[in-house]
Amino acid sequence: MAAQKSAHAQPPASERPHPDTSRRNQRSRRAIYDAALALVAEVGYPKTTIEGIAARAGVGKQTIYRWWSSKADVLLEAFLDLGAQAAQAAGQETYAIPDTGDLAADLKAVLRATVDELRDPTFEAPSRALAAEGIVDEQFGREFVATLLEPSLQLYVDRLRAAQDAGQVRAEVDPRIALELFVSPLAQRWLQHTAPISHAYTDTLVDYALHGLAPR
Amino acid sequence: MAAQKSAHAQPPASERPHPDTSRRNQRSRRAIYDAALALVAEVGYPKTTIEGIAARAGVGKQTIYRWWSSKADVLLEAFLDLGAQAAQAAGQETYAIPDTGDLAADLKAVLRATVDELRDPTFEAPSRALAAEGIVDEQFGREFVATLLEPSLQLYVDRLRAAQDAGQVRAEVDPRIALELFVSPLAQRWLQHTAPISHAYTDTLVDYALHGLAPR
Repeated sequence: MAAQKSAHAQPPASERPHPDTSRRNQRSRRAIYDAALALVAEVGYPKTTIEGIAARAGVGKQTIYRWWSSKADVLLEAFLDLGAQAAQAAGQETYAIPDTGDLAADLKAVLRATVDELRDPTFEAPSRALAAEGIVDEQFGREFVATLLEPSLQLYVDRLRAAQDAGQVRAEVDPRIALELFVSPLAQRWLQHTAPISHAYTDTLVDYALHGLAPR
Repeated sequence: MAAQKSAHAQPPASERPHPDTSRRNQRSRRAIYDAALALVAEVGYPKTTIEGIAARAGVGKQTIYRWWSSKADVLLEAFLDLGAQAAQAAGQETYAIPDTGDLAADLKAVLRATVDELRDPTFEAPSRALAAEGIVDEQFGREFVATLLEPSLQLYVDRLRAAQDAGQVRAEVDPRIALELFVSPLAQRWLQHTAPISHAYTDTLVDYALHGLAPR
C-alpha cells in the first residue's frame, strides 16, 4: 500500500555524485525496499535472503552489499521508509501526539491508531521480523530501538511533560518510565501473542495508568 | 548451575514400559536438555541444530525426533525443567507470590527477584531464544505462552485478587490487565534492550501502577 507510492527517501549525499547515478540508485533502492518487504510478508523473515531480495529487485547481490551489511539492515531501512511514506500520505510532516488538553483522550486516540497499525498486514510482517531479530541480535536490536522505537516513545515523553506542566500528571513522575505503563503492555500482547489487543483494551490501560489500581 | 543438579522430570507414562528403559530414557532426556541449553548459551539459538544437540548429548538424531518435533520444542522443555529444578533447589514446591498484607512490598520483592533471574546467564540465553522464536512462529509462541508465560502471570492475578478482597485494589479493576502495568514494561526493556533494568526501576513501576500518574 504505502510502499507502492512514489519515492521520497534519498540515498546519502556521498552516493549522489551525479544526477543520473543518483536517479538510478534511487530506483534500485526503491526496488530493493519493495522486494524486501514483499518477501518478508510472503515467505517470512527466516526464509528471506539477500540473494532472494536481489533477484526480486532485479539488481546484483553486490549492489545490496554495497549499501547494507545484512538483510536485517535492508529491512529496517525499508520499514523506516514505509513509515515515512505512510506519514507523508496522511499529511503528517511532523510527528507529535495531539494535545487537546485532555490527556486521557489524547493517549487513547494514539493507542487506538497504534492498535490499527499493528493489525495492518503491511506493517505487521516487517515490524514483527525486526523486533524478533533485535531480540536475538543485541547489536541490531540497539539499532532498531535507536532509529525506530525510541523516537516514537519520545513523543509520549513530550506529551506527558506537557501534562505535567498543566498539572495533570504528578510532577515527580518520570515520563520515560510512565509511558511504559500503557505502551509496553500493548507491545507485549502484540509481540508475544499473550492476549488479544483492541481499542477497549488500550483505553483500559490508559485509565489504569492515570488513576492507579489502588482505591482513591 | 541448576541444570547440573539431579534429575526429577519424568518422561510421559506411555514411554515408561519397563524400569530399565525408563531410566535410560531419563538419562537421554537429561543429556539432551543439558546439550540444548549449553549450545544455545555457547553458539546462540540460530546456530543450534537438532544434529548438534544429538552429537553433544551422545544420542542419535532419531532419539530426539521421537520425542520432539523441533529444536524450539526441545529448548522449551529443557527450560521448563531448568525452572522446575531451580524452584526445587530453592525449596519452592508450590508457586505463589507471597502475601504479607503489603501489596506494594510483595510485588516489589517478586519483581526484584525477576530482575535478578533475567540477568542470570543460565536463564537469559534460553529464555531470550524462546521468546524470539515465539515472535516469528505464532504457533510455537502460543505454546510458549501457554506453558511458560501465562502460568507465571496467573500468580499475579491471584495476588491482585487477594488485594481486591483486602480493599487494596479497586474492585472494578481487571487483575489480568492490571498486572501488565508492571510486568510488561520489565519484559519489554529486557527483551528489546530499550533501557536498563534494575530494582529501583521495578520498584518505580509498582508505585506508578498502584497510585497512578495523575495527582490525587
